[in-house]
Amino acid sequence: MARTIDLNSDLGESFGPWRMGSDEAMLSIVSSANIACGFHAGDPMTMRRTLELARKNGVGAGAHPGFNDKEGFGRRQILGLSQAEIENMIAYQVGALMGIAAHVGVPVTHVKAHGALGNMSTADAAVALAVVRGVKGVDRSLPVVVMPATVIETAAEKEGQPMMCEIFADRAYRDDGTLMPRGQPGALIEDEAVAVPRIIAMLEDGALHTVGGKRIEIPIDTICVHGDNAHAVEIARKLRSGIEAAGWRVESFAKRSAAARSAA
Amino acid sequence: MARTIDLNSDLGESFGPWRMGSDEAMLSIVSSANIACGFHAGDPMTMRRTLELARKNGVGAGAHPGFNDKEGFGRRQILGLSQAEIENMIAYQVGALMGIAAHVGVPVTHVKAHGALGNMSTADAAVALAVVRGVKGVDRSLPVVVMPATVIETAAEKEGQPMMCEIFADRAYRDDGTLMPRGQPGALIEDEAVAVPRIIAMLEDGALHTVGGKRIEIPIDTICVHGDNAHAVEIARKLRSGIEAAGWRVESFAKRSAAARSAA
Amino acid sequence: MARTIDLNSDLGESFGPWRMGSDEAMLSIVSSANIACGFHAGDPMTMRRTLELARKNGVGAGAHPGFNDKEGFGRRQILGLSQAEIENMIAYQVGALMGIAAHVGVPVTHVKAHGALGNMSTADAAVALAVVRGVKGVDRSLPVVVMPATVIETAAEKEGQPMMCEIFADRAYRDDGTLMPRGQPGALIEDEAVAVPRIIAMLEDGALHTVGGKRIEIPIDTICVHGDNAHAVEIARKLRSGIEAAGWRVESFAKRSAAARSAA
Amino acid sequence: MARTIDLNSDLGESFGPWRMGSDEAMLSIVSSANIACGFHAGDPMTMRRTLELARKNGVGAGAHPGFNDKEGFGRRQILGLSQAEIENMIAYQVGALMGIAAHVGVPVTHVKAHGALGNMSTADAAVALAVVRGVKGVDRSLPVVVMPATVIETAAEKEGQPMMCEIFADRAYRDDGTLMPRGQPGALIEDEAVAVPRIIAMLEDGALHTVGGKRIEIPIDTICVHGDNAHAVEIARKLRSGIEAAGWRVESFAKRSAAARSAA
Repeated sequence: MARTIDLNSDLGESFGPWRMGSDEAMLSIVSSANIACGFHAGDPMTMRRTLELARKNGVGAGAHPGFNDKEGFGRRQILGLSQAEIENMIAYQVGALMGIAAHVGVPVTHVKAHGALGNMSTADAAVALAVVRGVKGVDRSLPVVVMPATVIETAAEKEGQPMMCEIFADRAYRDDGTLMPRGQPGALIEDEAVAVPRIIAMLEDGALHTVGGKRIEIPIDTICVHGDNAHAVEIARKLRSGIEAAGWRVESFAKRSAAARSAA
Repeated sequence: MARTIDLNSDLGESFGPWRMGSDEAMLSIVSSANIACGFHAGDPMTMRRTLELARKNGVGAGAHPGFNDKEGFGRRQILGLSQAEIENMIAYQVGALMGIAAHVGVPVTHVKAHGALGNMSTADAAVALAVVRGVKGVDRSLPVVVMPATVIETAAEKEGQPMMCEIFADRAYRDDGTLMPRGQPGALIEDEAVAVPRIIAMLEDGALHTVGGKRIEIPIDTICVHGDNAHAVEIARKLRSGIEAAGWRVESFAKRSAAARSAA
Repeated sequence: MARTIDLNSDLGESFGPWRMGSDEAMLSIVSSANIACGFHAGDPMTMRRTLELARKNGVGAGAHPGFNDKEGFGRRQILGLSQAEIENMIAYQVGALMGIAAHVGVPVTHVKAHGALGNMSTADAAVALAVVRGVKGVDRSLPVVVMPATVIETAAEKEGQPMMCEIFADRAYRDDGTLMPRGQPGALIEDEAVAVPRIIAMLEDGALHTVGGKRIEIPIDTICVHGDNAHAVEIARKLRSGIEAAGWRVESFAKRSAAARSAA
Repeated sequence: MARTIDLNSDLGESFGPWRMGSDEAMLSIVSSANIACGFHAGDPMTMRRTLELARKNGVGAGAHPGFNDKEGFGRRQILGLSQAEIENMIAYQVGALMGIAAHVGVPVTHVKAHGALGNMSTADAAVALAVVRGVKGVDRSLPVVVMPATVIETAAEKEGQPMMCEIFADRAYRDDGTLMPRGQPGALIEDEAVAVPRIIAMLEDGALHTVGGKRIEIPIDTICVHGDNAHAVEIARKLRSGIEAAGWRVESFAKRSAAARSAA
């Protein structure tokens, strides 16, 4: 039986008259799309177009909620939100995508917090819990994408919410399992001759491989790839073909989960 | 068997630090709330609070989508949106309310277009169709509030979407069934000694009573009342007790529809 | 003495993480920039960068106020604003650009209404007057860009506000002096072999040349060119070199006005 | 010669259809208004109305720029803005108010950062410098309201920007001169029988009086009073009459500065 793995990417990040990213190309490569929901990027028409492209390509359509800050693209931390504010902010955005997804006739398959909200959800237990509860209150069976070995994984476990454990195709891991911060030497792995075999090795091993040579066993459900420029698209394409050549089938996590549920 | 009628009001129109309306008082009077969805008013926390008050009072919780224009409170016509833009704008807002309503554990019971979008949907067949399709694409069984004898009633019929026919407690009707425009003498009926018996007479008669003395037979499912000031709340309260004294039970349209469905 | 003419273009239309247009290329071609002020496009950082590029290129830096509608890029008519609302909306945006221009050390040289607001100001006398008064209240000597033979020219005359009369490099004129609407055959003149000699002929003649072969005498102060794609930039460049080859010097209207004032 | 002191308050905090505060009452009490500039609150019409009320009452009209976050009313810290982003954000808002103030025929008299931006400017030297430079780039003679003995006072000194040193009518000071955080017992001084004599004592003494009984000599140019509810307005009124009874004249700092400049 073929081993399967999911590839996810942030998409639908255009806004009004402004275009961003290579959605058409990326949707022919990845198996899951994290679709901006109109707060940090996206708008109803962009969401519609992205959902239609996802359907056409058989790609899982997830919600990618973020802070309500288009000018900062959701990358600036906004402090002082209560847990209730975060919960409702998540519910609003996930629901909004579901409303448009109903039109397109596809389910919303997962939720991944964007940018600063995503970062805070891996480092601040209260934010993590609020994000997970924001999703759970909408649908108890909707998986949350989590970074393994962080507070959001703990929160998802505690709340009994399904999760997808994610690794990054182009980021180095420190020995404690956290990402090496951007800006530090070696943080970004942009050479596909390095990135692709490294990812395959982690998949085969079922573990993070850190810069210090450690391995940290984690479940790997999905690999995050970027598509914000031509080179990124090319890396994503090579990663997919490399993974497939190594005997893995790229398939949306949602499909796998659904199959598992129907088999049970 | 008691005759039933629905009372609806626009609620949840606060935003961020700003309060508007008398939501607590009105939710003890009406049977259906039209809840702003964050475009012309409202925000995730306000939506949550309003949904919780609706649940507590057993009031039907509907979506009240509008143009994305808080500064103009959705009352300014915005021209040039395509039908697809209107559809997706509606789907986004209805879905967003559904996301938060799922947290609260209540269904979204109906949809009523707000302000300028609502007005345009009674006068412009293309807008009317887009509004109805925006709702239908989310849920084919979700009723749209319509003004009888206008293009949105036609659109709902054509699309087979359930509808709630609405009359206004405080507005005079011209002989063609349209509202007398605000600003014309007699357009607003603010004296409850006039308004209450007039509404009861229309209910009993199953027809609009126009300024010219005509009657136009229409189904009357719901009566729109305002709650934006103390006097308005007082009128709404008197309307409810007047209607009840005349032998009508005030009940959300949604409950009636659900009962009808389960009886069928 | 060389004859002079101004070339203007809409610039600074990026927003947050989103890029639009070819500002660097266009600022090496035009003599006046119409800079978005954060309502339909632009943000404080984009305004700063555009102002700095304008200074570096010796290009006049004008304000390009529009409706507060980024999703629609200011191209959707918003109805129902009072004249006071339009006046203050203009004053706010012009002032905002002036605030940042003070940092950069350049004056704001002119104001041109954007998109739907610009269109309405050529067709609706009340809007036209509000736009002109919005500028005048900030600075009585700040020129407004107007389309000749329209209500905004009349408004500027009536208010005694200086104006710059504009023709479009790529649009056909009907016999009444109005633009042929986009979408009609011949409305857009995209072949520079046609556009460039046509503009030079109008300049030499001091008149609009209409599709019906009429000439309408008007002052021509500035020519609007587009820069939203590579072809548009190329046309603008050819227009400039064609005009210069015909013996015209391209110079910002503001410089000319200042020279005229100091000569007087 | 009478001693003079300025009273300032945050005003113009309505937005679109939503009202906030008691602007009319407060503008008959204070001598300086800090007017929201459309980012955390306010809009062009609200700014216009507030400026007109300020003119009518002879009250100095200052800009009150904040983070672009109406939903959070500018009270949530937004991290990660560069100094250039803060500078331009300040310049934009100050300029926007100047644009409308030109219509009204009043000068912008001072700038005070709002909410979270204001707090950050007293605690983070980089933010403080960016705020001061944001003002200075617009006008080198425009005073910045500062909290004495904090990094923004240092920044204003370093940049040579005029400043107004502010104390709070209703807040307790710790022995290091910082405010006792809200939520700690005694942080808020809401009893005017305590607040008024305390402020007069500080004025007479030219020093902060701390909770530990220390005195910290500072220049006191202006006293911040609140007006967000009926009780706050009443306290402000009593503070003014108490100060006047003690022999102080309440006068806008701007007037005093202008007088000082013309005397020099």
